[in-house]
Amino acid sequence: MTDSLSRRKLFGFAGAGVALAGAGGVVGAAVAGSGDHAGEADLVPFHGPHQAGITTPAQDRMHFVAFDVTTRDRGELVGLLREWTRAAERMTAGQEAVDRGAVAGAGEAPPGDTGEALDLPPSGLTLTVGFGPSLFDDRFGLAAQRPPALADLPHFPKDNLDPGRCGGDLCVQACANDPQVAVHAVRNLARIGFGKVAVRWSQLGFGRTSSTSRTQRTPRNLFGFKDGTNNIKSEDTAALDEHVWVQPGDGPQWMNGGTYLVARRIRMHIETWDRTSLREQEKVVGRAKGSGAPLGKADEFDPVDLRARGADGEPLIADDAHIRLASAERHGGARILRRGYNFTDGSDGLGRLDAGLFFVCFNRDPRRQFVPMQRLLARGDGMMEYLEHNGSALFACPPGIQPGGYWGQHLFG
Amino acid sequence: MTDSLSRRKLFGFAGAGVALAGAGGVVGAAVAGSGDHAGEADLVPFHGPHQAGITTPAQDRMHFVAFDVTTRDRGELVGLLREWTRAAERMTAGQEAVDRGAVAGAGEAPPGDTGEALDLPPSGLTLTVGFGPSLFDDRFGLAAQRPPALADLPHFPKDNLDPGRCGGDLCVQACANDPQVAVHAVRNLARIGFGKVAVRWSQLGFGRTSSTSRTQRTPRNLFGFKDGTNNIKSEDTAALDEHVWVQPGDGPQWMNGGTYLVARRIRMHIETWDRTSLREQEKVVGRAKGSGAPLGKADEFDPVDLRARGADGEPLIADDAHIRLASAERHGGARILRRGYNFTDGSDGLGRLDAGLFFVCFNRDPRRQFVPMQRLLARGDGMMEYLEHNGSALFACPPGIQPGGYWGQHLFG
Ligand code: HEM
Ligand code: HEM
Repeated sequence: MTDSLSRRKLFGFAGAGVALAGAGGVVGAAVAGSGDHAGEADLVPFHGPHQAGITTPAQDRMHFVAFDVTTRDRGELVGLLREWTRAAERMTAGQEAVDRGAVAGAGEAPPGDTGEALDLPPSGLTLTVGFGPSLFDDRFGLAAQRPPALADLPHFPKDNLDPGRCGGDLCVQACANDPQVAVHAVRNLARIGFGKVAVRWSQLGFGRTSSTSRTQRTPRNLFGFKDGTNNIKSEDTAALDEHVWVQPGDGPQWMNGGTYLVARRIRMHIETWDRTSLREQEKVVGRAKGSGAPLGKADEFDPVDLRARGADGEPLIADDAHIRLASAERHGGARILRRGYNFTDGSDGLGRLDAGLFFVCFNRDPRRQFVPMQRLLARGDGMMEYLEHNGSALFACPPGIQPGGYWGQHLFG
Repeated sequence: MTDSLSRRKLFGFAGAGVALAGAGGVVGAAVAGSGDHAGEADLVPFHGPHQAGITTPAQDRMHFVAFDVTTRDRGELVGLLREWTRAAERMTAGQEAVDRGAVAGAGEAPPGDTGEALDLPPSGLTLTVGFGPSLFDDRFGLAAQRPPALADLPHFPKDNLDPGRCGGDLCVQACANDPQVAVHAVRNLARIGFGKVAVRWSQLGFGRTSSTSRTQRTPRNLFGFKDGTNNIKSEDTAALDEHVWVQPGDGPQWMNGGTYLVARRIRMHIETWDRTSLREQEKVVGRAKGSGAPLGKADEFDPVDLRARGADGEPLIADDAHIRLASAERHGGARILRRGYNFTDGSDGLGRLDAGLFFVCFNRDPRRQFVPMQRLLARGDGMMEYLEHNGSALFACPPGIQPGGYWGQHLFG
């Protein structure tokens, strides 16, 4: 190791310092962030009242993985969650997954870490864990602990789900500003889980497609539109309490301070979209493509007025516009925190790219937020003509972890 | 467009300035690069004696696409290559694909650019085009122009090729420091080619796995080893002339200054690898995992001595070590320029990640470089136990383009 950016040398100390800020905040490390987002060297504290990776300003890249639990032994599962927590504490601090890592091995024992992140700084890595509905079957005695809000998602009109991209007993969402750091984390957790869990599906997101903080520039999705303008932002603490964090009394106690993650793999038929006019595209979204402003307004952050009409008496935001049907106004005030990523997974065998949006959102109760929203969108959103939902999953993300605690501690403890 | 980093506003001027440095060099733009590689705002000149994206210090991300030509009309194909060249000149300069871009559309015409890179700087984008062996069949009258060096790759021992990941009439290698910029470029070229070409396969590489310049830190592949140490570097101009650039007299004139690209999608069985000891891993590679030094040496860049023996009389670099069988010494001095990327494409349905190395190398004549090397590796390399080659392609990359010229001009002209 000749490099001054060695994760083991430079960041080896960090384990002690990670509790300084709340989980999800960003602590600038050796290299300052670029202003827009956490820089590669930034460190996001792992511990705190909520899990990191939810209100953390969205990092650039994501590797999301859903696991099946293959052991039938509750103790083994709990042991794994403890081991994962320790490894996550280390990796989010820029250290190797375990104490005796990639180059410490002697004799016939394999190295403790896979090594591909050896020279890389923390890169803003967050690891967020969730429990799928299937974990609450009769295998681990958890049925009585299943939160009512973790109700299986209904079938939505036009769903075209591939079972190989759906569900999972557990999920890990790894986000980082360097994809190698996110992939390394998922791989090492999978490795620690060998014989107890198996990868069910995984998805790489190459670019964030939502801003989740007022400090971030709004990125664009593969329809070319700014995405995340009217998102809940990490600065909106009242809205987070109302729409994202599970509150005491909402359901079983172990979920207090947690949240529900919905993931949808949405293929975007970009070739068809690219053949429609700018006017049609803007009508479908309800916003201007260049500025991101609501139609009829000038600036991206001008408030949306769903009642505004043009000189011709027609609504400026069409009746079937995406932002009308997804609006809080249309859903009795319900909102969601979106945190999705653009993807491109090769081609589809028909001469087209397999590209789209890996949609991730966080809800205090999906039955009152994501579900009615998606039901309305699936039926009436003009955008549906260009979309195909082919993956779907729901997870209960427990609250944050205190030093010494572990993922799911209040569920199993 | 409210953003000061607007590709149209800030970089709109760049078209005039791109010829200042040779193609493949890096011109710092509004934001300086990080030292390790071109920064997001950096601009790599498109024009020059060789195509950019070959000796350009490897950017962080790649989107590689192979196309089938669907038109049977030679004139239409030439027209497309001209149009692609103009779009590439613009996009590598941080501009939209065409003059009237994503938000210029009026009436019923679709916008000229898909828009998802609207606010993004050039990000070191390079676009490199190659012609596959199949282009030289009887469709376009090119059979007589086919270079002997563009001989179909032979079947190698243990090849397990998926036809859906092999071949192609044309390829575009898009490399950039922001994946959204690379994906945008490929998508807009595909779009311009609608009705004339169809995507055959595409591959996203999330992280460079070779250094190609002495200014770059050596990255790690998914086996956790430094990759690119003993690579040809862009500073080695004599080696480039000897091993990479086609020289006058080598074959048909249109390829002078060009090079041959070999792409291999190599699945890495990381789960098996991760269960072997550090000693075994280092023996397989022939280098130390931590430092990257040849076994028995201390520093990454210490020269490899294939004759050195340990106290026990055994060779320090094993007989079946990767770096022995791939060494120039073993191949009569032949070397290659490696420029591959790590990939992770979801999971394999058997509980494992589908991950590996998208191997790309450049050769003056693959028959004397890649082919014998891979033949020896496929038969004897200890690493083969952990690898599966499941995609393969070969392309003739024509020389660089002067202002006003186009991709393939000397082939078709
Ligand atoms: C590929 C699929 C999708 C695309 C391309 C897309 C795109 C967009 C865009 C461009 C905006 C406007 C900018 C903004 O405020 O962020 C937006 C807003 C929004 N979208 Fe989507 N969206 C997609 C799927 C979904 C889904 C599945 C949901 C939830 C079920 C959803 C919920 C919302 C919400 C709540 C807003 C904010 C509306 C407002 O109050 O102004 N979107 N989306
Ligand atoms: C997934 C597959 C592969 C992996 C993980 C891998 C890994 C490595 C590593 C770790 C090194 C040592 C560091 C360096 O000098 O870059 C190396 C060297 C090298 N590899 Fe590979 N490699 C792979 C496939 C190939 C293939 C297919 C070829 C060519 C047919 C190749 C040709 C070379 C060459 C020429 C060297 C330099 C050897 C020397 O002269 O020291 N590699 N590779």
